[in-house]
Amino acid sequence: MYLEKINGPEDIKKLSIDELKILADETRKALINKISNAGGHIGPNLGMVEMTVALHYVFNSPQDKIVFDVSHQSYPHKILTGRKQAFLEAEHFHDVTGYTNPLESEHDMFTIGHTSTSISLALGLAKGRDVNHRDENIIAVVGDGSLSGGEALEGLDYAGEYDKNLIIIINDNDQSIAENHGGIYKTLKELRETNGKATNNLFKGFGLDYRYLDDGHDIQKLVALFESVKNIGHPIVLHIHTIKGKGLPYAEANRESWHAGGPFNVEDGTPKFNAGVNDTTVFDSLKNLLDTNSKAVVLNAGTPMGLGFVKGIREEYVKSGQFVDVGIAEENAMAMSSGIAKNGGTPVFGTFAPFLQRTYDQMSHDLCLNDNPATILVLSPGVYGMNSNTHIALCDIQMFAHIPNLIYLAPASKEEYRQMFQFATTQKKHPVAIRVPGEMVETGVEDTTDYSICNKNKVEQQGTKVALFAVGVMVPMAMKIAKQVKEELNLEITVINPHFLTGLDEELLNSLKENHELVITIEDGELMGGYGQTIASFYGDSNMKVKNYGISKAFHTDFDADKLLEENGISVQNIVKEIKAAF
Amino acid sequence: MYLEKINGPEDIKKLSIDELKILADETRKALINKISNAGGHIGPNLGMVEMTVALHYVFNSPQDKIVFDVSHQSYPHKILTGRKQAFLEAEHFHDVTGYTNPLESEHDMFTIGHTSTSISLALGLAKGRDVNHRDENIIAVVGDGSLSGGEALEGLDYAGEYDKNLIIIINDNDQSIAENHGGIYKTLKELRETNGKATNNLFKGFGLDYRYLDDGHDIQKLVALFESVKNIGHPIVLHIHTIKGKGLPYAEANRESWHAGGPFNVEDGTPKFNAGVNDTTVFDSLKNLLDTNSKAVVLNAGTPMGLGFVKGIREEYVKSGQFVDVGIAEENAMAMSSGIAKNGGTPVFGTFAPFLQRTYDQMSHDLCLNDNPATILVLSPGVYGMNSNTHIALCDIQMFAHIPNLIYLAPASKEEYRQMFQFATTQKKHPVAIRVPGEMVETGVEDTTDYSICNKNKVEQQGTKVALFAVGVMVPMAMKIAKQVKEELNLEITVINPHFLTGLDEELLNSLKENHELVITIEDGELMGGYGQTIASFYGDSNMKVKNYGISKAFHTDFDADKLLEENGISVQNIVKEIKAAF
Repeated sequence: MYLEKINGPEDIKKLSIDELKILADETRKALINKISNAGGHIGPNLGMVEMTVALHYVFNSPQDKIVFDVSHQSYPHKILTGRKQAFLEAEHFHDVTGYTNPLESEHDMFTIGHTSTSISLALGLAKGRDVNHRDENIIAVVGDGSLSGGEALEGLDYAGEYDKNLIIIINDNDQSIAENHGGIYKTLKELRETNGKATNNLFKGFGLDYRYLDDGHDIQKLVALFESVKNIGHPIVLHIHTIKGKGLPYAEANRESWHAGGPFNVEDGTPKFNAGVNDTTVFDSLKNLLDTNSKAVVLNAGTPMGLGFVKGIREEYVKSGQFVDVGIAEENAMAMSSGIAKNGGTPVFGTFAPFLQRTYDQMSHDLCLNDNPATILVLSPGVYGMNSNTHIALCDIQMFAHIPNLIYLAPASKEEYRQMFQFATTQKKHPVAIRVPGEMVETGVEDTTDYSICNKNKVEQQGTKVALFAVGVMVPMAMKIAKQVKEELNLEITVINPHFLTGLDEELLNSLKENHELVITIEDGELMGGYGQTIASFYGDSNMKVKNYGISKAFHTDFDADKLLEENGISVQNIVKEIKAAF
Repeated sequence: MYLEKINGPEDIKKLSIDELKILADETRKALINKISNAGGHIGPNLGMVEMTVALHYVFNSPQDKIVFDVSHQSYPHKILTGRKQAFLEAEHFHDVTGYTNPLESEHDMFTIGHTSTSISLALGLAKGRDVNHRDENIIAVVGDGSLSGGEALEGLDYAGEYDKNLIIIINDNDQSIAENHGGIYKTLKELRETNGKATNNLFKGFGLDYRYLDDGHDIQKLVALFESVKNIGHPIVLHIHTIKGKGLPYAEANRESWHAGGPFNVEDGTPKFNAGVNDTTVFDSLKNLLDTNSKAVVLNAGTPMGLGFVKGIREEYVKSGQFVDVGIAEENAMAMSSGIAKNGGTPVFGTFAPFLQRTYDQMSHDLCLNDNPATILVLSPGVYGMNSNTHIALCDIQMFAHIPNLIYLAPASKEEYRQMFQFATTQKKHPVAIRVPGEMVETGVEDTTDYSICNKNKVEQQGTKVALFAVGVMVPMAMKIAKQVKEELNLEITVINPHFLTGLDEELLNSLKENHELVITIEDGELMGGYGQTIASFYGDSNMKVKNYGISKAFHTDFDADKLLEENGISVQNIVKEIKAAF
């Protein structure tokens, strides 16, 4: 076994090409060992094994610097740079994160998880090198799926003007998370089919030097290619064809399903655990809209599965033109939504909250300034979303709630979500965003709220002395608090579900002054700049006491949602205690 | 005179080609009449005259829909679609805005002023048309300078997959606001020099159909080209070469200076009014940094003049690699800044606040998550920035203040700016953004604050009963309020300049509880989610009364800054009155 002797790139350089091949096989086995037992990004990493071995054989990391786009394909890099135990031994599986992480290793340049960033980050490293008069190699590794993002394209453009060492590796496995979308992929295909010789070449269109390698799993060819560009004095694109899921036949055959997932049985790919039943609330609402409104268009940006439009289901709607995947290109999706609404369609654009950060300007300027009635689904924001610091979205309220014209709604249940969705997709006055929590309760009671009455809050329970404002997903906790306060203090308190995050129900807030002394707000996002502080401001010059609860300002990571809430004082026990202390 | 008979596109269609040429000349004269007297975007509009005449001759607006990128080149379109008086008669100059505006005319699709949006917006109009089973032409007009923006590139990519009518006109005048930057412009030049036949073709790289026209001022050729693609069944790029400033020799000769400006004498281009002395505070700080720190890099995104690096000054620093213009590509500039800081450089990226909206994700994920010590200059935020709804930035605090790791500083004077800049560019711990108001006072007193003490506020004046927190540029008003309160109530109040917007000085805030009863906050941005509400939240469960002042939530436009403040209660008179009512 070679891998056991590999503690860093210097050990790789001692091997022969034939030994490198064995090392690659051992690396692949280590990958499969961990991912089959602990889950993770399968396809992207299996496709990067040989390239990573060759990179570390030819280049001298960490002096030479490699930036992995998204960095979900950096597991082989981790295995080869001193972190193999995290892939070989179950007790160390959680020693490393799923993305590059400078806190783990000097071989990792950035903590990243968003797509399309590597070329620009590498350009920055290159400029930093230049002003320090050094000459190390700077390498960006970016998948074909990441090329559709504006930041990657801006990076390619500036690289086309830049005139010093920069090596951009396009890891082309002909696949995004789902299938690729965009004109780029037509011409990448032409390049693959002509061994890089086709005339229509995006990279050359950006003024870049270009080379093609058809077999990204041939270590000898990879080493030769990398040797040929090592210390090159200008930017160059190395377009390398790889196979996503390489080495696991079922993963190679079904690249979308095997992008990432949970533990599985290696022999046949069957899952080790039942995946549980997927919540189809969002999907059902979208499907019903498309089936009943021929002018409706559902847009997504490279994450169709986030909306439930998995393979086998979306094709029918793609064909009818009603389901649009623009590729990883949220800016385009948001602006298109504005245009569709302007020209008589009913657009719904939905994606995960952290990725909506990429389209702030289009949300504000292209959509809301024009006040066009598009619906935006903000998926899994707050603590019940993804829990990696690379993918958290604790500031969705700060981002969106202050944008003029936008109505930002927070459902507390599936029934409310359905009614809000119905409102959003039938009204023609304003853009509406819906904050869709990762988990929604089903109350069994139909919501008949008229959401056209802007900023009207729902009083879940009318009481006295204390009013609890709970944003969306926090309503069930607020009800539990109220129940316990009733039991312990024999006090019936008021519970308010604001529904609207983009403005206050001033009439209701004023009425509370009559027989309430304390308002408590609870939200599952960052406290600073959040919903609750607007309530505190409203009551600032009155006698009402206000206590805001939200999450502390930090890039929280690897957290348990309920524990993080509790650490920030958001638990039934703590808030009941707070109320007891006040009365 | 033909123009007097033109009240809309239907009147243009009655003319012969020779008459169209005369109409174009008259349109150009109308343009020059207005801009020479009232200022505006000169170069972009002079270059669009013939193309706009031909567009309205061939296509049927508003059924056929034209989206102008940035829309700063839409004056000829306004002249030809019923709004000529605004260009012919001084008393009507202000009847129209400088950008397209659906409230003015059914021929205007969107209110826009940000760059790179037209292709995506047009794609949206196209999809809206499709689901309505109509077949009008959808046309995007985008300048070469706008092509470097991620949104435009994402749009080109999706257009390469889209399969129905869409006409993308690349108005190539070989110029952004300043010179173009990026590899795109090398290959656009090759295309211009080969009459569109060069091999390296970005548009074909995106899988798009393509045609070239060398003379974008030849109406006959323009009409023929447009006729040839009218009702085309797939997306096509029309690459049309025009001359920025066409018709004014001095504007043609100096395209950067004549992008936009104030009134001028037509005969020789001399300005009608003295421009006044430019404030060089920001420029001086940057120049000094570059001259004294060889590892410093100043980045901008297509707006070098915003940093004072005008033509004749920047070349020296461009040559040394210390001044980088990435073109209109804020995402790339922000990510590069993170990379430069990571690799031992001292990056400063500065641009206008509204354009920083385009790089929210890179600010949060690429820069702040990695906690790299880059300096970001947020130019002209708040009410003292640009005052068009297309270009306002009243929500910079909401955008940036909640991002973890970032230090967001608000200078109240030139001296504070200089000291903050010094701190930001010498510390190595965190990203620092500085909120640079459009106008800064010079106090004459050097600022020696140690800004490494995070969240430490400055007590400008220690008093009792009332504490005024004034964000940056509002400090002088707060001092005036204090003076008047002293005069009228014989009460010395406290005035606090928070310096830091990303956190509270809790020690100070707690100490105020001892002998203060009212805290008033004043900021020049949106009230909701702003700085003041965080103070209200801090005091929410105490006896301190808090009154927050900020700007109401709306896309305010064409406002006078002081009047807008006053409308929101932010005036010496009103706040003194508030204090008098309380005591």
